[in-house]
Amino acid sequence: MRILIIHGPNLNQLGQRDTEFYGTKTLEEIDALLGDEAMALGIDIDTFQSNGEGELINLIQKEAPEAHGIIVNPGALTHYGLSLRDALADIGIPVIEVHLSNIYAREDFRRNSVIAPVAKGQISGLGWRSYVIALRAMADELREQS
Amino acid sequence: MRILIIHGPNLNQLGQRDTEFYGTKTLEEIDALLGDEAMALGIDIDTFQSNGEGELINLIQKEAPEAHGIIVNPGALTHYGLSLRDALADIGIPVIEVHLSNIYAREDFRRNSVIAPVAKGQISGLGWRSYVIALRAMADELREQS
Amino acid sequence: MRILIIHGPNLNQLGQRDTEFYGTKTLEEIDALLGDEAMALGIDIDTFQSNGEGELINLIQKEAPEAHGIIVNPGALTHYGLSLRDALADIGIPVIEVHLSNIYAREDFRRNSVIAPVAKGQISGLGWRSYVIALRAMADELREQS
Amino acid sequence: MRILIIHGPNLNQLGQRDTEFYGTKTLEEIDALLGDEAMALGIDIDTFQSNGEGELINLIQKEAPEAHGIIVNPGALTHYGLSLRDALADIGIPVIEVHLSNIYAREDFRRNSVIAPVAKGQISGLGWRSYVIALRAMADELREQS
Amino acid sequence: MRILIIHGPNLNQLGQRDTEFYGTKTLEEIDALLGDEAMALGIDIDTFQSNGEGELINLIQKEAPEAHGIIVNPGALTHYGLSLRDALADIGIPVIEVHLSNIYAREDFRRNSVIAPVAKGQISGLGWRSYVIALRAMADELREQS
Amino acid sequence: MRILIIHGPNLNQLGQRDTEFYGTKTLEEIDALLGDEAMALGIDIDTFQSNGEGELINLIQKEAPEAHGIIVNPGALTHYGLSLRDALADIGIPVIEVHLSNIYAREDFRRNSVIAPVAKGQISGLGWRSYVIALRAMADELREQS
Amino acid sequence: MRILIIHGPNLNQLGQRDTEFYGTKTLEEIDALLGDEAMALGIDIDTFQSNGEGELINLIQKEAPEAHGIIVNPGALTHYGLSLRDALADIGIPVIEVHLSNIYAREDFRRNSVIAPVAKGQISGLGWRSYVIALRAMADELREQS
Amino acid sequence: MRILIIHGPNLNQLGQRDTEFYGTKTLEEIDALLGDEAMALGIDIDTFQSNGEGELINLIQKEAPEAHGIIVNPGALTHYGLSLRDALADIGIPVIEVHLSNIYAREDFRRNSVIAPVAKGQISGLGWRSYVIALRAMADELREQS
Amino acid sequence: MRILIIHGPNLNQLGQRDTEFYGTKTLEEIDALLGDEAMALGIDIDTFQSNGEGELINLIQKEAPEAHGIIVNPGALTHYGLSLRDALADIGIPVIEVHLSNIYAREDFRRNSVIAPVAKGQISGLGWRSYVIALRAMADELREQS
Amino acid sequence: MRILIIHGPNLNQLGQRDTEFYGTKTLEEIDALLGDEAMALGIDIDTFQSNGEGELINLIQKEAPEAHGIIVNPGALTHYGLSLRDALADIGIPVIEVHLSNIYAREDFRRNSVIAPVAKGQISGLGWRSYVIALRAMADELREQS
Amino acid sequence: MRILIIHGPNLNQLGQRDTEFYGTKTLEEIDALLGDEAMALGIDIDTFQSNGEGELINLIQKEAPEAHGIIVNPGALTHYGLSLRDALADIGIPVIEVHLSNIYAREDFRRNSVIAPVAKGQISGLGWRSYVIALRAMADELREQS
Amino acid sequence: MRILIIHGPNLNQLGQRDTEFYGTKTLEEIDALLGDEAMALGIDIDTFQSNGEGELINLIQKEAPEAHGIIVNPGALTHYGLSLRDALADIGIPVIEVHLSNIYAREDFRRNSVIAPVAKGQISGLGWRSYVIALRAMADELREQS
Repeated sequence: MRILIIHGPNLNQLGQRDTEFYGTKTLEEIDALLGDEAMALGIDIDTFQSNGEGELINLIQKEAPEAHGIIVNPGALTHYGLSLRDALADIGIPVIEVHLSNIYAREDFRRNSVIAPVAKGQISGLGWRSYVIALRAMADELREQS
Repeated sequence: MRILIIHGPNLNQLGQRDTEFYGTKTLEEIDALLGDEAMALGIDIDTFQSNGEGELINLIQKEAPEAHGIIVNPGALTHYGLSLRDALADIGIPVIEVHLSNIYAREDFRRNSVIAPVAKGQISGLGWRSYVIALRAMADELREQS
Repeated sequence: MRILIIHGPNLNQLGQRDTEFYGTKTLEEIDALLGDEAMALGIDIDTFQSNGEGELINLIQKEAPEAHGIIVNPGALTHYGLSLRDALADIGIPVIEVHLSNIYAREDFRRNSVIAPVAKGQISGLGWRSYVIALRAMADELREQS
Repeated sequence: MRILIIHGPNLNQLGQRDTEFYGTKTLEEIDALLGDEAMALGIDIDTFQSNGEGELINLIQKEAPEAHGIIVNPGALTHYGLSLRDALADIGIPVIEVHLSNIYAREDFRRNSVIAPVAKGQISGLGWRSYVIALRAMADELREQS
Repeated sequence: MRILIIHGPNLNQLGQRDTEFYGTKTLEEIDALLGDEAMALGIDIDTFQSNGEGELINLIQKEAPEAHGIIVNPGALTHYGLSLRDALADIGIPVIEVHLSNIYAREDFRRNSVIAPVAKGQISGLGWRSYVIALRAMADELREQS
Repeated sequence: MRILIIHGPNLNQLGQRDTEFYGTKTLEEIDALLGDEAMALGIDIDTFQSNGEGELINLIQKEAPEAHGIIVNPGALTHYGLSLRDALADIGIPVIEVHLSNIYAREDFRRNSVIAPVAKGQISGLGWRSYVIALRAMADELREQS
Repeated sequence: MRILIIHGPNLNQLGQRDTEFYGTKTLEEIDALLGDEAMALGIDIDTFQSNGEGELINLIQKEAPEAHGIIVNPGALTHYGLSLRDALADIGIPVIEVHLSNIYAREDFRRNSVIAPVAKGQISGLGWRSYVIALRAMADELREQS
Repeated sequence: MRILIIHGPNLNQLGQRDTEFYGTKTLEEIDALLGDEAMALGIDIDTFQSNGEGELINLIQKEAPEAHGIIVNPGALTHYGLSLRDALADIGIPVIEVHLSNIYAREDFRRNSVIAPVAKGQISGLGWRSYVIALRAMADELREQS
Repeated sequence: MRILIIHGPNLNQLGQRDTEFYGTKTLEEIDALLGDEAMALGIDIDTFQSNGEGELINLIQKEAPEAHGIIVNPGALTHYGLSLRDALADIGIPVIEVHLSNIYAREDFRRNSVIAPVAKGQISGLGWRSYVIALRAMADELREQS
Repeated sequence: MRILIIHGPNLNQLGQRDTEFYGTKTLEEIDALLGDEAMALGIDIDTFQSNGEGELINLIQKEAPEAHGIIVNPGALTHYGLSLRDALADIGIPVIEVHLSNIYAREDFRRNSVIAPVAKGQISGLGWRSYVIALRAMADELREQS
Repeated sequence: MRILIIHGPNLNQLGQRDTEFYGTKTLEEIDALLGDEAMALGIDIDTFQSNGEGELINLIQKEAPEAHGIIVNPGALTHYGLSLRDALADIGIPVIEVHLSNIYAREDFRRNSVIAPVAKGQISGLGWRSYVIALRAMADELREQS
Repeated sequence: MRILIIHGPNLNQLGQRDTEFYGTKTLEEIDALLGDEAMALGIDIDTFQSNGEGELINLIQKEAPEAHGIIVNPGALTHYGLSLRDALADIGIPVIEVHLSNIYAREDFRRNSVIAPVAKGQISGLGWRSYVIALRAMADELREQS
């Protein structure tokens, strides 16, 4: 079982970004925690980050055919990335949307996700744990189905 | 460590409600799964359900002082239960909001949560697993803080 | 054949409420008229009133399994009672929504019913006759189906 | 006692129109059912249909002075026919608005009736019975007043 | 100099319509007053009324080429008659829009005129005098230009 | 009979302002035309102009008790001058609102008049004639009443 | 003279709730201050609190017939409690709405009161004094009328 | 194969209407071009024009049963002709909506088509070619299906 | 202790203005009542009225440095007087906003106060008592702080 | 004559994407059909696809100076790609916007095109034929002009 | 070359107003800095301040004919001062709008400027430097044109 | 001191783009003018342009750590580039937003900047001078702080 972890714009700056909202862990540390969890769960993961919507779509088109699920933090594309949404909707595998911060307790424009309607579920506000529990839930879900 | 699990209106009908959105497990089965998970995590939980907003508030005011965290599925009160929101905001312990279905892929009115701004985080769309991973995340979070 | 008649908040005050909109008959008088009509139609009815949304939901969950149809006047819950809506949608029997006054000729906020989308039909503005003709229509409808 | 039954645009196609929403009875069959009901009630009815708003207004201006009540299904004019609304408001006799389908459970634009504020009441979603029970209610109402 | 006076839907009922808003003069009386005024001004007028938007457009297309100005009271078409608007915009002669009542002091939907942007000017709220002063203004205006 | 003519902000610049919308006559010339018309009608007028809303209100409070009608061009206060509106509503004499340009064929913000709901009528788009015909209509109206 | 003091949801937590907005006095202390004031004014008061809208309506229906005025702090029901609104409108005695905090200087959703249109007046932002001065004003008002 | 070409309000004035938007060809010339194209394609067409929505609906109801497709330019009814929309939706044959001008580059109100949701496709902004290529596309489409 | 009482536009007309909303007392009578109350409270007050927003701001800038609190009835400036709002926000002393009528039970535009967010509190709907109880509350509040 | 065919995000997945909306032809097959049509028309085409807005703009800036027209299917950028819009507006050659599916009969967010106001015309809902007839129309149009 | 510097309501309080937004310099200090800059640029300036919109308009009407450009900080009139807007639009000289604070990073109502559409440009958020660089830009611009 | 100058999508086309709005200078000429100004100010600048949001973010992340301020013209990303906004907010150095044209005097969609809330200030409408005076202001500002 192979799961893609996709990080959107500006998430490569984690650890330096506003730590009140995003926490102090870097993206490398989060990816390492996800690697540990994947090993414990006996699954494979691949992690990617890009600041460009086009690159994220290219990546999804290239990698998704060899994957069973996607965990995506779309960054600010959450709110306007309709092309990313179409790319996620086009692939036939489950998607879980994660956010480090609680997007519903910030600026108004962050309260709307154009990605959510094409995701199976959404986890927000739990910091780096948002990713880890998304991974476990995805693994459990996929195992149950197979 | 004691965590309250609070189920809002109509959730006592689980298993009979529209199974496309809510799955086939009854509330008793979900509570039992949460009981197992709590035992595994070495924590205490208490579960409650009510169809009335006033009763839910009474319950939170009575039980929260002896608890360390709340996991709440507000049912349809999600969208207009401002009194419930105030009750959750008044207590000083973390709240995680859960939804069985993906509220962002249904009717328009279900896309807005008045509870979310006072919650630490939100998990939606993962069926009964929404509750279980909320419980784990809450336990981890509370342990890290103490 | 058994049909539930459910009266929402403040309807127990009928006869004393603004008689321009609601007429001069008390709820007891309306229930008596409905009883006469039911007898004429050869069906059973049970009538309930509550001022609390939670109680109304409890009642529906308890009584609906032994009933074939529901006639509901949600009172002001018409405009925000999404939990009541979910309760009505969860049961598998037809619902007719009635209003004594023409809700479309009053304050703006009364023009939107959150209940209507889960009802089979709606009758408004015909005073106590709204109930009586709803009962006849429900009986005819149910007989035709069986 | 004479009551006008007025059918708006496209209702002459009943029986062929989308039967999920409008049922399988033709307009002739509905008019016949109304004729039977009128005979049983001991009243006179006249039924009209037109696809043009101007013709409907001409008809109302010509016939209403000799009538005691109007039952109108405005078809799609429900949502924008303000001239029809004015015509109905100008005559001094009661109007009941009927809809075969539940206009509140369809497309958004069908949820607003510009006719409703000038009608005494509204009945929707009960198929051809919407007309029949409107006729009974109108007859009862008019008799009570006289 | 020939000026068309065009009366929209329901204006043939003047004198019987809600006299608080529309006054007690009939359309024939208003047309007669306009005829007197025209004679005094030394101009020709032709007056028309129809309840159908299509007929009003046919009339404008037929008569406007032989006219120098149009005075139109669009009735309720004021608020949605975009086809009438296009017809008025297509002809190359000045249009003055008149209303008997003050449309800005009534229901909200009457506050918007889709005709006004293609008219030279608008006169409202002055009862039958709205027409008469429109006629004088049109005559003066046309004379000044020629 | 004494009628007040009140000109709002920037109207003292007429003749120099955008002549496409406002014409080439100065305010003095318009006031002179109004004086001629008043003499012909056998009535008294007094004309005022101010760029400040407070001054306009002071003026109305001072002069209105000795006047029988007001003709007001509120300038841009048309769209937000609620204090001016209250001042006009407080006096018990009829008000006609005039505009040189067609305010419904310009920028969106000019389409809403907060003054109109407290005026008897409104005349717009007829240039300086807007004032003159307003004066005649006011005189006729007042004479008819007395 | 008997006045009802009604406290809505979560107000029983005063003293513990966010003290920046609500102050440090408990509800018991406020009720005691109101009792002292009532004694000084020579009137009777009865105080009630409930977290449920249904219970508040029951209470109003039961107690209002024996009372001369109501002072109500609807808590968060202020913003959506339309059933409570109807209950207050149905009784024939004056209502004053009070808020401890300035609801117009907080979250957007708190700026709209559905209760205010059926109240005689509203007092907000003056902490516990909001209640006390409401009591004095109610007493003065009622005495003046009688 | 027979295809109906339906022209809505004011299109009979083509060639005289604002030529910047609508071009210089008359409707007769466009119909002739369509006739040539139909002959080349080996299909039958019939063309109709009316300024009244009711007449357009009558025509569609009468002619559509003997036709295989409809090409319609609804004129200004595009934006509010919900009865026309229902008529087009009721017939079971494909509809292509055409516009001479680019309705998305004009006034705001022209940007919304109530017809589009019931059409198979839409072509706008290509002048008289909008019709011709619609005819070809319809013919190709219908041939492919048969 | 010195408190400023500031009356906005049109309040100098009290007693003559619409007495249903504003009562029959003149501004002089209200000021006299406030003077009596101030004497009883042992504080100084100064009262001002102006119809111009600029004058009100000048006055606040001049007088506020020698005052301890402001009671302001902004009249219609309540709804658009953002400059007045800034003036009140700039001074460092508490402001209480008062209204004679219940602004929440009148026209829609009166339901929004741009002043309220910079006031400590708001009192509306209690007629001249709105001022008197505002004065008491301000005095109590200021004494408690010192 | 050289025409650019530009395909936006996710269109390289055609044939695999939701075939109900997009049909079963791959992008290569559509490009081949366009190549055949171009040959028949005696013109040159070049086709491009990219998932990134920036790349699409680079491409337009590079290729447009050597081209006479552009046919663009912007994919989901239709709804938010304002930079793409500016790029298309900056070049001085005609643009036709095409969509495989009827964007007006899908989700609400797909009903608005930010590209349309800068295009000459728009064709939607005709599947791969949308492209082919766009190509013919562009060729005819360009030939007529030259 | 003579440039007018116009300061709107409350700006005479600079140095005392909320220094987080407006800085610590007084208006006199800013005017002095502008005087120095003007001298260095070899141009004349005149500075004005008023709290009243009417006075600002009087001033512009009086001074603008002898000036070549205007730099205006409209204060809160930025958001509703449509009369000021008209006054600025009526004069034929360039206007630059300046704001000390970044109006786009404050309350929602401050994000809209009704002045901006009639200004040549806008500078905001740079404190007193907003004025100084506006002056330099105006001088450069005017010199280039002459 | 090193300042980044960042040009967004389509700005590399300056000199060819709509010269009414953007002027006739090319981007190279503007960069050269900025180079001269920087030399005069004794500071370093680096200029960048990209048509892709992702590339702009990469660039900011790479260059900002070695810079003291950013001057950015986001092009059309101004209105939807929330990822760019986050990138600018994440870096800890001041940002000034510039626009060649007055974005508040163009299409409605250009009136909203999602970048402005995270910028220190904004300069628009002054053509190439917008950049130059932004550079001077940034230099002055940074010097004052150090």
